[in-house]
Amino acid sequence: MINIGIIGAGRIGKVHLESISYHVKNAQVKAVADPFMNEQTKAFVEGFGVKEIYTDYHEILNDAAIDAVLVCSSTDTHAQISIEAINAGKHVFCEKPVDHSTAKIKAVADALAAHPGCKFQVGFNRRFDHNFAAIRKAYDDGRIGDAHILKITSRDPEPPNPAYIKVSGGIFLDMTIHDFDMATFLTNSDVEEIYVNSAVLVDPAIGEQGDVDTAIITMKMSNGALAVIDNSRKAAYGYDQRAELFGSKGMVATSNDTLSSAVVADANGVTGEKPLFFFLERYMESFSEEMRQFVNAVETGCEVPVGIHAGLQSVKIGLAAKKSVAEHRPVKLSEID
Amino acid sequence: MINIGIIGAGRIGKVHLESISYHVKNAQVKAVADPFMNEQTKAFVEGFGVKEIYTDYHEILNDAAIDAVLVCSSTDTHAQISIEAINAGKHVFCEKPVDHSTAKIKAVADALAAHPGCKFQVGFNRRFDHNFAAIRKAYDDGRIGDAHILKITSRDPEPPNPAYIKVSGGIFLDMTIHDFDMATFLTNSDVEEIYVNSAVLVDPAIGEQGDVDTAIITMKMSNGALAVIDNSRKAAYGYDQRAELFGSKGMVATSNDTLSSAVVADANGVTGEKPLFFFLERYMESFSEEMRQFVNAVETGCEVPVGIHAGLQSVKIGLAAKKSVAEHRPVKLSEID
Amino acid sequence: MINIGIIGAGRIGKVHLESISYHVKNAQVKAVADPFMNEQTKAFVEGFGVKEIYTDYHEILNDAAIDAVLVCSSTDTHAQISIEAINAGKHVFCEKPVDHSTAKIKAVADALAAHPGCKFQVGFNRRFDHNFAAIRKAYDDGRIGDAHILKITSRDPEPPNPAYIKVSGGIFLDMTIHDFDMATFLTNSDVEEIYVNSAVLVDPAIGEQGDVDTAIITMKMSNGALAVIDNSRKAAYGYDQRAELFGSKGMVATSNDTLSSAVVADANGVTGEKPLFFFLERYMESFSEEMRQFVNAVETGCEVPVGIHAGLQSVKIGLAAKKSVAEHRPVKLSEID
Amino acid sequence: MINIGIIGAGRIGKVHLESISYHVKNAQVKAVADPFMNEQTKAFVEGFGVKEIYTDYHEILNDAAIDAVLVCSSTDTHAQISIEAINAGKHVFCEKPVDHSTAKIKAVADALAAHPGCKFQVGFNRRFDHNFAAIRKAYDDGRIGDAHILKITSRDPEPPNPAYIKVSGGIFLDMTIHDFDMATFLTNSDVEEIYVNSAVLVDPAIGEQGDVDTAIITMKMSNGALAVIDNSRKAAYGYDQRAELFGSKGMVATSNDTLSSAVVADANGVTGEKPLFFFLERYMESFSEEMRQFVNAVETGCEVPVGIHAGLQSVKIGLAAKKSVAEHRPVKLSEID
Repeated sequence: MINIGIIGAGRIGKVHLESISYHVKNAQVKAVADPFMNEQTKAFVEGFGVKEIYTDYHEILNDAAIDAVLVCSSTDTHAQISIEAINAGKHVFCEKPVDHSTAKIKAVADALAAHPGCKFQVGFNRRFDHNFAAIRKAYDDGRIGDAHILKITSRDPEPPNPAYIKVSGGIFLDMTIHDFDMATFLTNSDVEEIYVNSAVLVDPAIGEQGDVDTAIITMKMSNGALAVIDNSRKAAYGYDQRAELFGSKGMVATSNDTLSSAVVADANGVTGEKPLFFFLERYMESFSEEMRQFVNAVETGCEVPVGIHAGLQSVKIGLAAKKSVAEHRPVKLSEID
Repeated sequence: MINIGIIGAGRIGKVHLESISYHVKNAQVKAVADPFMNEQTKAFVEGFGVKEIYTDYHEILNDAAIDAVLVCSSTDTHAQISIEAINAGKHVFCEKPVDHSTAKIKAVADALAAHPGCKFQVGFNRRFDHNFAAIRKAYDDGRIGDAHILKITSRDPEPPNPAYIKVSGGIFLDMTIHDFDMATFLTNSDVEEIYVNSAVLVDPAIGEQGDVDTAIITMKMSNGALAVIDNSRKAAYGYDQRAELFGSKGMVATSNDTLSSAVVADANGVTGEKPLFFFLERYMESFSEEMRQFVNAVETGCEVPVGIHAGLQSVKIGLAAKKSVAEHRPVKLSEID
Repeated sequence: MINIGIIGAGRIGKVHLESISYHVKNAQVKAVADPFMNEQTKAFVEGFGVKEIYTDYHEILNDAAIDAVLVCSSTDTHAQISIEAINAGKHVFCEKPVDHSTAKIKAVADALAAHPGCKFQVGFNRRFDHNFAAIRKAYDDGRIGDAHILKITSRDPEPPNPAYIKVSGGIFLDMTIHDFDMATFLTNSDVEEIYVNSAVLVDPAIGEQGDVDTAIITMKMSNGALAVIDNSRKAAYGYDQRAELFGSKGMVATSNDTLSSAVVADANGVTGEKPLFFFLERYMESFSEEMRQFVNAVETGCEVPVGIHAGLQSVKIGLAAKKSVAEHRPVKLSEID
Repeated sequence: MINIGIIGAGRIGKVHLESISYHVKNAQVKAVADPFMNEQTKAFVEGFGVKEIYTDYHEILNDAAIDAVLVCSSTDTHAQISIEAINAGKHVFCEKPVDHSTAKIKAVADALAAHPGCKFQVGFNRRFDHNFAAIRKAYDDGRIGDAHILKITSRDPEPPNPAYIKVSGGIFLDMTIHDFDMATFLTNSDVEEIYVNSAVLVDPAIGEQGDVDTAIITMKMSNGALAVIDNSRKAAYGYDQRAELFGSKGMVATSNDTLSSAVVADANGVTGEKPLFFFLERYMESFSEEMRQFVNAVETGCEVPVGIHAGLQSVKIGLAAKKSVAEHRPVKLSEID
């Protein structure tokens, strides 16, 4: 039985608490820490039988009975807490992005290099989604041949609060970072070069924060494939999450998930359901699966499915995207330190 | 917290044990009884933290701390155990069919009449399936108007062992009974008359048992709608579970669920996945939902969603179907006892 | 160049005139006859360059330069005109149904037996539809193995004028007759027995004419397959024309045709188009193809794709359907003279 | 009746000959000219009743009875012949691209300015395709609100002969030019800026000709929308022609056309048909429709649906695309001439 401590009891910390309690065998949450722990959160955590509830995460790092920690705190603390946890001999699951600074991510990588037995996984949950995993499997099985064109559509149902935009690091480090990771995952390749075509079409307040809300991002992958991501902060019909990989022998594509397959035909046409509302509905099962695989890596010593390289790559791509917008030109990943 | 005892630790008993442990709040399995309890099953049950494991189900009925029992034993014992449980003051969830004999089901109804506070639910889990529930919701919302034609396609991926055919009561009481219940649920109406067109096309051994393996069953519903079910014991592409309800204002239809939405386009065509394999894969979530609703009825005193009337109706329809085959004519439900 | 005379310039006669003029090589319409020829129709016919326009169809039968005639007159005259045309040495394309009386159809068959060189084709155009032809091809190619279950959905967008009901011979000889022919075509088999479950749900005026407007029709086919047709005189979403053939190795199914594949996703859901409105829109191409194949049979002497056997079978099935409704029991085709 | 002369009797000239003969009322082909007229082509043309067959197109221009000419000759002669035809008082339908040089296209525009009564239409047939027209209609009807993101997928089933690459002007002026026109049509807007991400992944011989065979092209439209086109010269599953327009209120998307809607479910999955093979199969109906609208403009004097502006724009976009590849940077349309 793997004992887990969760650092950060916000939305995603709670998701992991529930996943581990209900859907992960051989693991249990032993402690939860959050500097802003309130009564409501405390009651939620206790509802899962967790007895050790702290405001200071060091209590978790100092507990020898805890095998692994989940770093679910605010992004600016991910790297620091991860390094402390690694040095404290814990296995670490760190939410994405590891940090907005490549230097800080490299510091985490350095800590890991000094602790070769440490399992460190980054929270790119979409890799474990049934649809995206099916694309990668079709590719790995050789059903589409060499990868030529990857297309990812990723549109949110609602833009975030403009106040959040600033701390989020902007659309590329906050929202598109998942798509960047998907691009590398689905093509099994890194990014070489990126060009961003973007605009503020959803909400001028986003533009006032120096960010964009609509983007078409094209990339050259290291294996020669071309990739494109299209993003919008607001799709009237809900959370749009599709991908297609086209290759020398064929194409594999996925569509959105819905609550049911019911289709109503009437005088207005033939109408199916909107996509599942947002990431908690759409990707819930993937959160469980990433946790199962992390626990499995801790238990068996096998490699984690999403390591620090993915954590660093995705941020570098995001920074290159920002640079492309700022300088209005294609940017090579090698330009990002 | 509702304490539950499970009587019968076969496949479906285990499903409910897992559902309650993982997916039902405010309930826990306190005891499990099975006359053929073996080491493997015992270990499985213990894995969910259940400490009271018996061979004699009376241990459960005699435990005053147990609020509700799940009757998951063999069909021929459902009625007897249900009556004993009702008389012992337990709420009862009984697997389908309640019995093959309407007299025995009525005896259960009589016991219930004598215990008006008892919650008694029958295990027609498909009512809680996301797709079928969406059809009923569209109907209840008035989107299709009056019901005119109901079509249910229900085909298994593999026929059962011929040895099982005899004890199962035949295709209509074993397999189609779920579809009969769906017909009444989706049209919100009882059946008035039935005619069966059937054949042995899958396996002659099924015919040798006096049963059929392929059938088209048409019914007149009490609300005037016409209904048709088509059954096969073997679909080469897997478990086919679809329905469509056509009415004065429109139609609602559902298709099969798949593991992913991935579609591969290549020189052979555009190929999507087969349906989920069988009922455990296809209907797993509905088993959790029926249990949540049963526990809710026990907790709040509200009505159960599937009561003894549904249990009796479905068996009467099944018996009428058998009579239609035997006598080669349409049979009214009123002819059945 | 095959010279054709069209007898009957109503809706279907005009369709054939246009098809032959635009879409059939090696054939031309030389003459058109209609007892009720009016100015508007005359202008329409002349627009296609036809110069010989008559009220008496004998003018066509007496024209030695005419190779083939299309019998597009009212149903009660089909048999008589066909026999005259056969005896006049013409090849004949006769609209469906050949007649409502099997005796009269047999009289046509007798005339054909006396003229073995005569090509006689019945107007079951749906056999030439791209979707239904694809089902039959998949079956012929062995992709679904032995036929077990055939399902046909056939629903009209609007009921006919009640006044028409009487002369039409009722739903089974007017509307379902196409589906009966499809059942024999798609399974490549005759019908052995039929049972009809029917109701008046669309319009009481139809019931007052002694007809039904909603039906589920089950059949045993000679090759052992079971078949079911569901009919409604009014589908709110338009003309619903689907079929599926299920067999030992798999299933082939077709869906409705639409004007475009456009799907709009918005706050209401994901909405595609309604089916093409009615048979002229839906089956236009099949009218051309049946005519091409008829002309080809005339030209090359090869067998016609839909002969008098199909014309007789479909009416016998329709009469058996009426008998099933009247006597409320399954009826064998052998009971119909 | 509009009399038409066709100049150039290659593949597309023959398509128009057949369309006009079969599907366009009030028009007839009076003459066909081709410098390389051979016996086979002559027989084909005569089969449609055309009696005036020339090698010198001036015979057509000099025929006062001819109202309109179709310029279907090789691209390098389009502008010259068009100008001669305009000056000869003919209406002109010119195949795409009008020319590879903007100067030459402007010379055509100048000729048109001097002949204000002349109807001049460019052969962007896809505007008349049922699917693409449905996207534009949904947009015009306000169903998707303001345009934010346009996506076009356009992949050929087979690359052209490498020898053809050189004379074709490269992928952007030969293949993508249709997609460029679609981008302006579907968003009802011109292009402001373009960036091309491209590669040689299909056939090195294409690269040796200085061309690419795979591309992702992003554009800023004048109305603020972002657009992306993805191209491949070879899709293993056939001709892939899809588009989707995403806006403030929703999205409209189209999928590929197939020969039938038949889907086979078997042990391998659920398999539908490949897209229609290539442009002659896929867009045949649009060729008829563009011709009907051209004839209508000639007849009624109304505006042509695709004028010289579209002809010039599409080539300018193509040239900007080539410049973007050559200079590896985003290129503004204003930089072209």
